[in-house]
Amino acid sequence: MQGLMQDKPLLISSLIEHAATFHPEQEIVSRSIEGPIHRTNYRRIAHRAKQVANVLNELGVEFGDRVGTLAWNTWRHMELYFGVSGSGAVLHTVNPRLFPEQVEYILNHAEDKVLFFDISFASLVEKLVPKLKSIEHFVALTDRAHMPEVDIPGLLCYEDLVEGASVEYDWPEFDERTASSLCYTSGTTGNPKGVLYSHRSTVLHSLMAMAPDAFNVSVRSTLLLVVPMFHANAWGMPYVAAMVGAKMVLPGEHLDGEHLYPLMRDERVTFSQAVPTVWLMFFQYLDAHPELDLDKELCIDTIGIGGSAPPRAMVRRLETQLGAQVIQGWGMTETSPLGVVNRPLPKHDDLDRDGLDELKVKQGRGIWGVHIKIVNDEGEPQPWDGVHSGHLYIRGPWIASGYFRAEGGGVLDDEGYFPTGDIATLDPDGYLQLVDRAKDVIKSGGEWISSMDLENAAFSHPGVAEAAVIAIPHEKWQERPLMVVVKRAGAQVDEDEIMAHLAERVVKWWLPDDIVFVDELPHTATGKLLKTKLREQFAGYRPRREAVRS
Amino acid sequence: MQGLMQDKPLLISSLIEHAATFHPEQEIVSRSIEGPIHRTNYRRIAHRAKQVANVLNELGVEFGDRVGTLAWNTWRHMELYFGVSGSGAVLHTVNPRLFPEQVEYILNHAEDKVLFFDISFASLVEKLVPKLKSIEHFVALTDRAHMPEVDIPGLLCYEDLVEGASVEYDWPEFDERTASSLCYTSGTTGNPKGVLYSHRSTVLHSLMAMAPDAFNVSVRSTLLLVVPMFHANAWGMPYVAAMVGAKMVLPGEHLDGEHLYPLMRDERVTFSQAVPTVWLMFFQYLDAHPELDLDKELCIDTIGIGGSAPPRAMVRRLETQLGAQVIQGWGMTETSPLGVVNRPLPKHDDLDRDGLDELKVKQGRGIWGVHIKIVNDEGEPQPWDGVHSGHLYIRGPWIASGYFRAEGGGVLDDEGYFPTGDIATLDPDGYLQLVDRAKDVIKSGGEWISSMDLENAAFSHPGVAEAAVIAIPHEKWQERPLMVVVKRAGAQVDEDEIMAHLAERVVKWWLPDDIVFVDELPHTATGKLLKTKLREQFAGYRPRREAVRS
Ligand SMILES: Nc1ncnc2c1ncn2[C@@H]1O[C@H](COP(=O)(O)OP(=O)(O)OP(=O)(O)O)[C@@H](O)[C@H]1O
Ligand SMILES: Nc1ncnc2c1ncn2[C@@H]1O[C@H](COP(=O)(O)OP(=O)(O)OP(=O)(O)O)[C@@H](O)[C@H]1O
Ligand SMILES: [Mg+2]
Ligand SMILES: [Mg+2]
Repeated sequence: MQGLMQDKPLLISSLIEHAATFHPEQEIVSRSIEGPIHRTNYRRIAHRAKQVANVLNELGVEFGDRVGTLAWNTWRHMELYFGVSGSGAVLHTVNPRLFPEQVEYILNHAEDKVLFFDISFASLVEKLVPKLKSIEHFVALTDRAHMPEVDIPGLLCYEDLVEGASVEYDWPEFDERTASSLCYTSGTTGNPKGVLYSHRSTVLHSLMAMAPDAFNVSVRSTLLLVVPMFHANAWGMPYVAAMVGAKMVLPGEHLDGEHLYPLMRDERVTFSQAVPTVWLMFFQYLDAHPELDLDKELCIDTIGIGGSAPPRAMVRRLETQLGAQVIQGWGMTETSPLGVVNRPLPKHDDLDRDGLDELKVKQGRGIWGVHIKIVNDEGEPQPWDGVHSGHLYIRGPWIASGYFRAEGGGVLDDEGYFPTGDIATLDPDGYLQLVDRAKDVIKSGGEWISSMDLENAAFSHPGVAEAAVIAIPHEKWQERPLMVVVKRAGAQVDEDEIMAHLAERVVKWWLPDDIVFVDELPHTATGKLLKTKLREQFAGYRPRREAVRS
Repeated sequence: MQGLMQDKPLLISSLIEHAATFHPEQEIVSRSIEGPIHRTNYRRIAHRAKQVANVLNELGVEFGDRVGTLAWNTWRHMELYFGVSGSGAVLHTVNPRLFPEQVEYILNHAEDKVLFFDISFASLVEKLVPKLKSIEHFVALTDRAHMPEVDIPGLLCYEDLVEGASVEYDWPEFDERTASSLCYTSGTTGNPKGVLYSHRSTVLHSLMAMAPDAFNVSVRSTLLLVVPMFHANAWGMPYVAAMVGAKMVLPGEHLDGEHLYPLMRDERVTFSQAVPTVWLMFFQYLDAHPELDLDKELCIDTIGIGGSAPPRAMVRRLETQLGAQVIQGWGMTETSPLGVVNRPLPKHDDLDRDGLDELKVKQGRGIWGVHIKIVNDEGEPQPWDGVHSGHLYIRGPWIASGYFRAEGGGVLDDEGYFPTGDIATLDPDGYLQLVDRAKDVIKSGGEWISSMDLENAAFSHPGVAEAAVIAIPHEKWQERPLMVVVKRAGAQVDEDEIMAHLAERVVKWWLPDDIVFVDELPHTATGKLLKTKLREQFAGYRPRREAVRS
C-alpha cells in the first residue's frame, strides 16, 4: 500500500525558488574576475538563473545535455548552478587547474555542448578549441566591456546573452533521479573519472549537510566559500546556502590570505570551508601581519576542512587563534562529498586541548544516510576498535553507483557498497580515521606502513615544508618506504635529524629506508600529492642504507 | 539521462539503524505507565524493534496491514514506531482521548489487525471489543506482573511476546512511497479523517525538522516529548531523535507540571514541544511552587509550541521566566505536521521584548520543501503584505494528497495544493499569521471577523480563563459574533468589563453582539475548542443587544 502523500520530486530548482521566495534580499557577495566586489541577492540570482535556462534553450541545449564550466566561485557560477541543472541539463564543472590535456580529455569525454568560462581561462580555452570535439558554443563569463581578445570562433558574451533573455520561465518538473551535474575526480591516478549526480542525491545531501551535527548551516550563517565550485560541487554548499537562504561570499580567483582576510572581515563571515592548503596560505598571511586584531575584526565561528588530512597543529591554531570550531569532514567526489563529519560528542566536552587535537585529527563520524564498513583484504568486516584497519566501503543515497560512461566498470561490492580506495580505522564511538590510500600504503613484510602517518610525523618537524612517502620495491620485505622532503625556506635540516624526529613518533620498522631532499613535489590540480608522478621519478631508486626492518 | 547515484530508498528502519550504530548508548528515559522511571537506549530499542517485527510476523500481520496503538509516550511506543513501520506494516496511532465512539469508528475504519494498548486504556478497550470488526489480536503494553484484569479474549502480553521473539531480523527494503503510518485528524468537524504517511514523507520531514532553522535537533539535544505520539507522529520527533541520536525523555501518561517538572530537571532537558494547554498547566505548577529555583534547576533552551495559537503572554513568560527560546510552528495532521516555523531572522536581533512578542505570536515562515499560498474566495492569490488574508493552501513532499479510503474525495486544487481550511495573512518577510479557521470565521456584511483574534483579546483579560467566539445568524449582516466565556476561578468580571476590554483591542464592528458566561467549554480530544458542539448548544440563541455594526 502506498502512502497518500504528495508526489513532489526533489529538484534543484526548488532550492533557488525557496531562497527567492523567503530570502529574496539575502546577499551574494563576490570578488569578480574583473576585479571589483560584486553584490547581488537571491531574487536576482533566481531571476537570472531563469534567463540562463532560456539562453540554453536558444543555444540548442536539450534535456540531459552537458554544459561545461571552467570557472571560479562567483555569482555567475551560482546562476549556472541553478540555471543549468534546473532546466534539466547537466552542469559539468571542470577543474581549470588540471593539466590542459586533462581538461581536454574531460571536456571531450563528457561531450559538453556549451562551455562557459571565466576570462582568466580565455587563453587556455583558445588553445584547446581545435581539440574539442563536442562544444558548439563558447561563452565568456563577463560583460561586453571585458570580453577577452582571443581567437575563439563565435565567442559569446554571458552578460549580453543573459540580459537579452526573457525572465519568463517555469522550472520543469521531472524525475528526481535525472542527472543534475557531473564532476570528475582529482586524478591522483591516471585520468579523472566522471561522477554523475542526480537532483535527488543533491537535495538529500543538502538536507544532511545543513544539519546541526553536520555543517549546521542556517539563515544566520555567512559562508565564505573557498572550496571551488568545480571541486565536488563546492562540498554541496551552493545548494545548502540556497536551501536556508544563507548569505554567501564568493572569493573568485584569489584564495590567498591577502584576498580572503578582507572578505572575512568586511562581510562578517561566520563559516568557511577549504582544504588544508588554503589554511596554510592563510597562516602565512597572518604571520606576515602580526598587527591584525583578529578577535576584533573576525567573527568566524566554524571552519570546515576536508579533502586531505589537516595537520594537528593546523587544527589547534585555527581553534585557538581564530576562536573558531574546526569541523573536519571526509569525503570524495564520489560521495557528493559528505561521508563522515567530525563533531565532538557531548561526552567530549571536558577534553583539554591535547585531547581535542587528538579527536579532531580524526576524519569524523557517520551521519544519517551513510553506511560505512571497513574490511580486510579478504573482505571480512573489521571491528570498530580504533586499531584494526581495513578498506573503507560506503553506501547511501548520495554515493556513486558507478562512473560516467561506465568508466571503471561495475564498482559496487555485492552488498551495494562503493569501495573508496581509502584504508581506515573506526573507533568504538564510530569515529573514522584514515590510515592511507590503499594505493599509497606500503606493504612491508605482509604488514602495512601508512605513508600518511609518516608524512604527518615529518611535517611536525619545523624544518619540513612538505613530505611524501612512497613505496620502493625490496627483495625481502616486498616494499619499503622512501621519504621525499621539501625543506622549509631557509631551514637547516638533514636526514639524521629527520630520522631522529621520526623515530620518536613511529615504530622502528616504519622508518624510511632513505630520505631524499627535493625542491618541490608534484601535485594534482586540487593541491594533493601526485604520487604516481613521484613513483615515476624515483623508479629504480636504490636506498642508501639497509632496511631497518632486517 | 539518470544520475549515477545509489538508489537507496528512504526508509524509517534506516533511522533506528543509524541510532543503534552511532549512538547505541544514548538514553531513552520514560515514566512508565506502571509507575517507575524506565531507562533504555537506542541499541536496545533497535533490538526490540526487530523483535516486534518478528512478533507481528507470528501474529499474521502482512505488508501494508494496519497495526493500532492506544498508547502514551513511552519506550514501548518507540519500539512500535520502528518495529511496525520498519517491517512494512502501517503504524496506526489512535488518540485515546477521543470519544469512545470515535475510537471505535477509527479502529474499524482503518481495519486494524492488531491493537497494542497501554494498561490505562484496558477498560476502554474491553468495552470496545464487541464493536471492533477487524482486530484479531489485542496486546497489553506491559509485563506479565501488570497484566490488567479485563475480559478481552486471548489478550496478549507485550513483554512476553517481545522477549520471546528472535532478535534476528533484516529490515526489508521496499519502495519508499510505501505507507508507513496512519493518523486521524483531531475531529473539530465530524469524524476524524485518516492521513496516510509514507516512508519517504517521514524521512524528508525528519531531515527538515532537524534543520537549524526549524527545530535544530542534534545529538546534544535532550528532548522531553510532551506532544503525544498519537498526535501527528509527535510532530515527527521520534524519527528526528533517532536520526541524530538525541536523548529522549518520554513522560508517559501524566502531562501536568507536577510530573513534567522533575523530568525536565533531573534529565537535563534542553528542548520540549507541546500544545499551549500543556504550558498553561506548567505555569499553574510554577505558580504553586514559587520556591523553585528555575535558573539553577533547569537547562531548557528551546520550547516548541503548535497545534493552536499560544497567547502572547505565554510566549513572553516562557522566554523570560525559563530563559528558553520559544519556537512556534504551524501544522496539521495532514502536513506531517511541519508547515511553517517561527524563528527570528538576523534582522530581528535588535527587537525589544514587545517587538519579540509581536513577532513570536505569528505562526512562522515557510521552510524548504513547503510551498504556500493564500487565495481569496475566488481563488486569486493574495499579496504578502501582512494585511490581505486568504485561504491557506500548501504543497510539498510531506503534505497529504488525500485521505485514507478517499474520505472527502479529491482534495487538492488544480495546482496540486492542499486546502488547509485555515485563513491567514503572509507578511513581506514570509511570516504567516493565522486569522482563523475558514469554518470559524464570522462573515459579517461581506467582511471577515476573526473568532481567534476576538478570543485572544478576551483571553488577555485576567478574569478570563477561556473564551470561544462563534457566528450566530443575523438578518442584515448574515452573521454576527457571539462570545462564550469561562471565568477564571474566583474572578469577578462581567459583560461590560470584557466588552470595554475588547473595545480597546479590536475595531468596533467586531465587538460581539453578546457575551455569555458558562462553566466550561466543549473540547476535542487534543484540547482544542469544539465549536461544532458549541454551535449546537447555542443554536437559535438571540443576542441581548443590537449588532454594533448597525
Ligand atoms: N579529511 C580528509 N583527510 C584525509 N584525506 C581525505 C580527507 N577528505 C578526503 N580525503 C582524500 O581525498 C579523496 C577524495 O578526493 P577526490 O574525490 O577529490 O579525488 P582524488 O581521490 O584525490 O582523485 P582520484 O580519485 O581521481 O584519484 C579521498 O578518497 C581521501 O583519500
Ligand atoms: N501554531 C498554531 N496556531 C494556531 N492554530 C494552529 C497552529 N498549529 C495548528 N493550528 C490549527 O490546528 C489545525 C491542525 O490540527 P489537527 O490536524 O490536529 O486537527 P484539527 O484540524 O484540529 O481537526 P480536524 O481536521 O479533524 O477538524 C490547523 O489547521 C490550525 O487550524
Ligand atoms: Mg578518488
Ligand atoms: Mg484539520
